Amino acid sequence: MGSEADEVVLSAELSVVEENGAEAIMALLRPKEDMFGGVVMEVGEAMEPVAFAALLKAAMRRFRQQEKNGIWLKLALTFSSLVDAAVKEGFKYHHAEPDYLMLVCWLPSRPCTLPANASHRVGIGAFVMNNQREVLVVQEKLGPLRGLNVWKFPTGAVDEGEDIASAAVREVKEETGINAEFVEVLAFRQGHKYFFGKSDLFFICMLKPLSFDIKLQESEIEAAKWLPIMEFVNQPFVQKHEQDKLIADICLKKMEGQYSGLSSIRVKSSTDRINTLFFNERT
Amino acid sequence: MGSEADEVVLSAELSVVEENGAEAIMALLRPKEDMFGGVVMEVGEAMEPVAFAALLKAAMRRFRQQEKNGIWLKLALTFSSLVDAAVKEGFKYHHAEPDYLMLVCWLPSRPCTLPANASHRVGIGAFVMNNQREVLVVQEKLGPLRGLNVWKFPTGAVDEGEDIASAAVREVKEETGINAEFVEVLAFRQGHKYFFGKSDLFFICMLKPLSFDIKLQESEIEAAKWLPIMEFVNQPFVQKHEQDKLIADICLKKMEGQYSGLSSIRVKSSTDRINTLFFNERT
Repeated sequence: MGSEADEVVLSAELSVVEENGAEAIMALLRPKEDMFGGVVMEVGEAMEPVAFAALLKAAMRRFRQQEKNGIWLKLALTFSSLVDAAVKEGFKYHHAEPDYLMLVCWLPSRPCTLPANASHRVGIGAFVMNNQREVLVVQEKLGPLRGLNVWKFPTGAVDEGEDIASAAVREVKEETGINAEFVEVLAFRQGHKYFFGKSDLFFICMLKPLSFDIKLQESEIEAAKWLPIMEFVNQPFVQKHEQDKLIADICLKKMEGQYSGLSSIRVKSSTDRINTLFFNERT
Repeated sequence: MGSEADEVVLSAELSVVEENGAEAIMALLRPKEDMFGGVVMEVGEAMEPVAFAALLKAAMRRFRQQEKNGIWLKLALTFSSLVDAAVKEGFKYHHAEPDYLMLVCWLPSRPCTLPANASHRVGIGAFVMNNQREVLVVQEKLGPLRGLNVWKFPTGAVDEGEDIASAAVREVKEETGINAEFVEVLAFRQGHKYFFGKSDLFFICMLKPLSFDIKLQESEIEAAKWLPIMEFVNQPFVQKHEQDKLIADICLKKMEGQYSGLSSIRVKSSTDRINTLFFNERT
């Protein structure tokens, strides 16, 4: 595929890089030093893969001389034609989002201490009970319980950047139309090798309903209703499965006023972030 | 760059694909249907980007006819030369690990309901107290508290696939040489826009020490010692920062027997996974 022509271009590009030295690298790869002895680069404009390969080679030579640690390279989706050149230069993937790919190359011979990619997906299940001791339950159109006629709590994923409490309120509203407010995290479970091999944290949140008329989310939810809590707990599916039974028992205890979970409070961290701290207020 | 030659190859490849129909796609892209009306493909052998582009085009035409939802494409790092062709065909990045990139293309016109990438990094801080009411504290060589002479709990990241309790025990052992066993999660905090913009969950774990002679991890830890708990709590840094003070107060309450956190139990899920459920046993 035109390898001779490519080599001519490559050699021309390399000499441009050598002549202009640091300036070309600075202008096109915009390297910035990080707090850990590494460098972060981001391609800011379109270029030919061959030119990019030459530029990257020169940059990496420089970073090796400077004894840098991890070299990060962020490539927007639009620059997908440059991914291959970076891999050929020794970069591996670190993480990706829909619109970019982050690659990284660890230069030292000592073991790599780069921070790992996000390790967990986070989800919520919402325990919402009205004054008649009925719980809000749904049947989903898709998923493992489909067609089993099992009533379950509304559940959903916590989005990146979303508070656990907000996610619970949002999912209840989306799936059932019910307005509710967050009360407590009653319990949570950790599991491994879920979607894409990631670990998974699932928070059982108690919510207090603020409205009672159900309006189904037609696209995902087959049915939703208020179900007497004992009918929910006594479902054979719940009684048969250890984890489901234990969670149901926690909800029953909570109903009887014999359980305290973790409520949430906004707190400022030492680095001036506004975080949410979940702790047991009642003890 | 040899576009005429490429077109000839492309047209040849396309006719191969058309002639052999499903077989070529099955053999080279190994499509499998998923539980959500989608298809998962994984390239299993090296091929030229041009041939891959033709194959992918034919496969996508087929999936559109079949009204499939999300089309997943897993490309090992060694097949980085094929990334660009997939993006040109309409794929976006979904997630990546060091050795592979997962791309996805959502076909329907209705809103995308694909599962999101892992959203959270997870960490632990370990509250370890001996019988003399001294807590195990460290000073780190790197990080934001470096050089501030602040004593803090041992902390660390929970690896993908690692239990929260195991991570706490491991970090205490690594940083200080102390053997300890997990007792409870006392509290946890959620924050956003940490590393790479990911959200972050941090679990304060109480551990019971099983040994007492400190052995420093020289590479990361500047100093470690057993510190009377009131000296820990009364550090100006702890008293000045809301989140640190609240966590210290929780630990004090726990010491006085006036706090119950969440202990852990192994449970089997309805899908036969062995998970860990954290809940308040004492109420």
